[in-house]
Amino acid sequence: MDFAAIVAEIAEEIAPFRGQGRVANYIPALGAADPHKFGIAVATRDGDVFSAGDADERFSIQSISKVFTFTLALDLLGESLWRRIGREPSGSAFNSLVQLEQEAGIPRNPLINAGAIVVTDTIVQHFDRDRAVDAILSFVRQRARSEAIAIDQEIARSEAVTGFRNAALANFLKSFKNLENPVEDVLDVYFNQCAISASCSELATSMLYLANSGEDPLSGDQVVSRADARRINAVMLTCGHYDASGDFAYRVGLPAKSGVAGGIVATVPSHLAVAVWSPGLSPQGNSLVGTLALEKFSAKTGLSVFRA
Amino acid sequence: MDFAAIVAEIAEEIAPFRGQGRVANYIPALGAADPHKFGIAVATRDGDVFSAGDADERFSIQSISKVFTFTLALDLLGESLWRRIGREPSGSAFNSLVQLEQEAGIPRNPLINAGAIVVTDTIVQHFDRDRAVDAILSFVRQRARSEAIAIDQEIARSEAVTGFRNAALANFLKSFKNLENPVEDVLDVYFNQCAISASCSELATSMLYLANSGEDPLSGDQVVSRADARRINAVMLTCGHYDASGDFAYRVGLPAKSGVAGGIVATVPSHLAVAVWSPGLSPQGNSLVGTLALEKFSAKTGLSVFRA
Amino acid sequence: MDFAAIVAEIAEEIAPFRGQGRVANYIPALGAADPHKFGIAVATRDGDVFSAGDADERFSIQSISKVFTFTLALDLLGESLWRRIGREPSGSAFNSLVQLEQEAGIPRNPLINAGAIVVTDTIVQHFDRDRAVDAILSFVRQRARSEAIAIDQEIARSEAVTGFRNAALANFLKSFKNLENPVEDVLDVYFNQCAISASCSELATSMLYLANSGEDPLSGDQVVSRADARRINAVMLTCGHYDASGDFAYRVGLPAKSGVAGGIVATVPSHLAVAVWSPGLSPQGNSLVGTLALEKFSAKTGLSVFRA
Amino acid sequence: MDFAAIVAEIAEEIAPFRGQGRVANYIPALGAADPHKFGIAVATRDGDVFSAGDADERFSIQSISKVFTFTLALDLLGESLWRRIGREPSGSAFNSLVQLEQEAGIPRNPLINAGAIVVTDTIVQHFDRDRAVDAILSFVRQRARSEAIAIDQEIARSEAVTGFRNAALANFLKSFKNLENPVEDVLDVYFNQCAISASCSELATSMLYLANSGEDPLSGDQVVSRADARRINAVMLTCGHYDASGDFAYRVGLPAKSGVAGGIVATVPSHLAVAVWSPGLSPQGNSLVGTLALEKFSAKTGLSVFRA
Repeated sequence: MDFAAIVAEIAEEIAPFRGQGRVANYIPALGAADPHKFGIAVATRDGDVFSAGDADERFSIQSISKVFTFTLALDLLGESLWRRIGREPSGSAFNSLVQLEQEAGIPRNPLINAGAIVVTDTIVQHFDRDRAVDAILSFVRQRARSEAIAIDQEIARSEAVTGFRNAALANFLKSFKNLENPVEDVLDVYFNQCAISASCSELATSMLYLANSGEDPLSGDQVVSRADARRINAVMLTCGHYDASGDFAYRVGLPAKSGVAGGIVATVPSHLAVAVWSPGLSPQGNSLVGTLALEKFSAKTGLSVFRA
Repeated sequence: MDFAAIVAEIAEEIAPFRGQGRVANYIPALGAADPHKFGIAVATRDGDVFSAGDADERFSIQSISKVFTFTLALDLLGESLWRRIGREPSGSAFNSLVQLEQEAGIPRNPLINAGAIVVTDTIVQHFDRDRAVDAILSFVRQRARSEAIAIDQEIARSEAVTGFRNAALANFLKSFKNLENPVEDVLDVYFNQCAISASCSELATSMLYLANSGEDPLSGDQVVSRADARRINAVMLTCGHYDASGDFAYRVGLPAKSGVAGGIVATVPSHLAVAVWSPGLSPQGNSLVGTLALEKFSAKTGLSVFRA
Repeated sequence: MDFAAIVAEIAEEIAPFRGQGRVANYIPALGAADPHKFGIAVATRDGDVFSAGDADERFSIQSISKVFTFTLALDLLGESLWRRIGREPSGSAFNSLVQLEQEAGIPRNPLINAGAIVVTDTIVQHFDRDRAVDAILSFVRQRARSEAIAIDQEIARSEAVTGFRNAALANFLKSFKNLENPVEDVLDVYFNQCAISASCSELATSMLYLANSGEDPLSGDQVVSRADARRINAVMLTCGHYDASGDFAYRVGLPAKSGVAGGIVATVPSHLAVAVWSPGLSPQGNSLVGTLALEKFSAKTGLSVFRA
Repeated sequence: MDFAAIVAEIAEEIAPFRGQGRVANYIPALGAADPHKFGIAVATRDGDVFSAGDADERFSIQSISKVFTFTLALDLLGESLWRRIGREPSGSAFNSLVQLEQEAGIPRNPLINAGAIVVTDTIVQHFDRDRAVDAILSFVRQRARSEAIAIDQEIARSEAVTGFRNAALANFLKSFKNLENPVEDVLDVYFNQCAISASCSELATSMLYLANSGEDPLSGDQVVSRADARRINAVMLTCGHYDASGDFAYRVGLPAKSGVAGGIVATVPSHLAVAVWSPGLSPQGNSLVGTLALEKFSAKTGLSVFRA
């Protein structure tokens, strides 16, 4: 397929929609984002990247980091991870505490905030607090083959100062004895992982292991087992868009994960990975124009895990 | 792939687990099922069926009927169906009323009871009450190419006499003005569709249109559009196993729908359809041994929508 | 105290507020009520009734009937009633199903719809279906010493035709095996009891047994034990205004029960009973001007169970 | 009434039940309490105190402190307090976060943890952090006319170290912008107020203003207005025992507040105040034997706000 032409076409077709949606503004550094930005990048297993728009501009990856930490934790702990987290879609908002109370401190899945905080706790447990951030950042850099990927310290600090909802979640998890480390330590790592900045091109590249049987096609590293790669894709498909995961599966049909700064990564198992970015969000907190772009990508290429 | 060998192997491997789980006993006709029964059938697009165990014994398809009525309704109403039902996983039990109250009478998806009752209402609206049952039954017979498929009247009657939870759901939907027809009429059709009896071989065959771009590969009928086939698979994957849908996606990785009598159908887009049956259920109400058999099927064949 | 002057004063002071609130319109017969109507009546233990406004005009007592049926059921079953119903404020709307699902079919208290339906079931069980309505009606007539109190058949029929939410509740209770009689029978009696018409003067008189140690001060009948009278008052205070019960206790400080047609009855233990009527409702479904009138009554007379 | 005889009688009658219930053990200092302890004290408006059992032994007042801080806050802020807290029974556990999420950060009432934390925030706002603890402690000492009442520093520290659920609540409130001061400051004061130690005799005396039109009968101080005293009693009656408030009203019929260390205070408006203590708790977290003692007190004396 002529991906260069396809991404160009998509960039053109979504142009009239640029600027739609609401930019996250709970911290100033995110609120300053230009809602007209749009980037798309497709990375194939042989190392090519096809992009359009602002695909090389870095943005805050936010919840997309949950895919990386989930990968690390699943690799570290294996099936025992599921004693502390579920793998069901939550049917509720990304930061809901309701379900956590009803289910006695077991978060629904690793891709909502509560679950991701538990995942981060397992990483803090394995490394130590300071090395945990490095471990996550190194992993992302390796996957994206870009040493330039870094943590935006201003965003990390802002999250720490305003992240009362996440502090509530972490304390709540701790009250259920589902955090092993001090709340502050886990939150510190969590806020840092969310503040990683990367571009669409880098993110698409970084997801290739999930489109290639768990093996990084460029380095040849077996990042996770083939079975785990399949499972991570499954969790992304059912849980990657919070309470809009079903809608995303219906419209796009690809395992994917969104972030509140407007990024979305998606994988086409056995084929490629794709990343989009546009800061305007839907009411559920997913990139509005980004989702539209991925819907077009799926329609134009016929690439969907459900293509019958 | 040598599907004959594979299904035989699976039947052998699950033998030690036969009898596990709890047989649904809310009506006597279901409670009488032998928990040691097990059947599996694979239907390929060129018309072959490979089966093992009790694959030709008919059982009550129950909620598997929701796939057929959803197909009919999506075809009849198109996107306007989504004004009355969502397409998100519910994260709660098959017959929960909680979410329905919180979401003002809009069921989460067409594969939980509340949503399926709305779907049936659209079919009653289009045909009339008496012809609605016929329309559904004819559709199943055509897809399965088996005129012998019939409604078990004893089960239909028993459901009607004991179905207070479904009557509660239907009245609740009506109170939100999300039923156009009389409660009794819709429930009558609903209880009849659930009481259809079919075998694994018939059910596997009946699902082939979802593995073949919406076209029935045997008759050549375009049952639904290619896009709708993809969408139905997506909804099956995210919502087909109630509050165990995420777990099923993780373990099996195929669009599927379970029924309370122990049947499960699954599709492998572009390849085939498979049906299993074993009456013992998990706490979430899905066939325990049936799920295990499908997990083995996916592992042995590598067939999963998430195979990376 | 000069109750004649007090009620006249109240009627004058609330005059500017007449017409406020939303009249219940889920059935035409209620929707036709004139929102400017207002009545108030105080009945003392020696048989005097002091009234003002439209205090002798009959209106649909609706949920006020729950006090009468609760009295009958507590007398019939004693403490065993509490195996089937709780006595906690619900914190949710009068017709919520959520709590019922979470608490496995045990309604929170006898003064919300679900609990009142269970109460009615116990009455249907004790009498039979046809005699149950008579038993309730006779009880109200005796307490109010008015044979003219009757059931508004048009309202009873309308409730039956449109009462889908109550039908949902009854079927839901039945699914939890917390209804002994057929759903239709219980609902029929329930819709009839709600359709009783009485005036403020009649209702104030009818409540005197709760202000007089369980004894009807006029007939001398011991309607319920002294302890049960105290308990009924307690349940009215904590649960009589649905999710506005706390607010009513804060503002008025009297055991009371509201109905959706705009009536409210209140008791001042050891003193008197009072009834008000005004059809405009608050968002929680309680009479707006009626509550205001009772707030003034409590302030003017100093009568409150909490007067320190 | 011969209160000396009555409290002696109650102490005798409850003797067989001593030791029942589960002692709170979330912090060691509370878990060490002897479950066989029992005290009762009645304080009348003319300054007499009648007591039995361990009525002069101090224990941790815990949530009973919420009555004092609520009194202070209502006096400081008046009706504007209700912009930040409701006054409805919650129908859920003392430390639930569910309702707080559904109701956007407005706690149901000032006597559950979330509401009491907001109340404490208003006190921290008015005084400053360090003076807030003093202000609360001084108020309790004055009301109880006992300078010996003090804060148990070990308990305050333990609460701070293990109070993850309260930290979750405070952070959650902060995320809804319903805390004006830093989370740590408010929690520090909150943990200190809960750690006040007082005896039954002191607590009964301290509540007299709520039984005497808001005026402290001993000092003659008008602590709160007559209307506010009535309102505080109302909130205690509907909300003072968490999700067992309705049951307490039914069985005892007095405005009251319980604490997790086994204390309960109750008021008889216009008469007296009573305090009991026994460490064993019901599943809802209220003193089991203490409630029984108050039930006997109400039955023996006929003192109930609902006595008809």
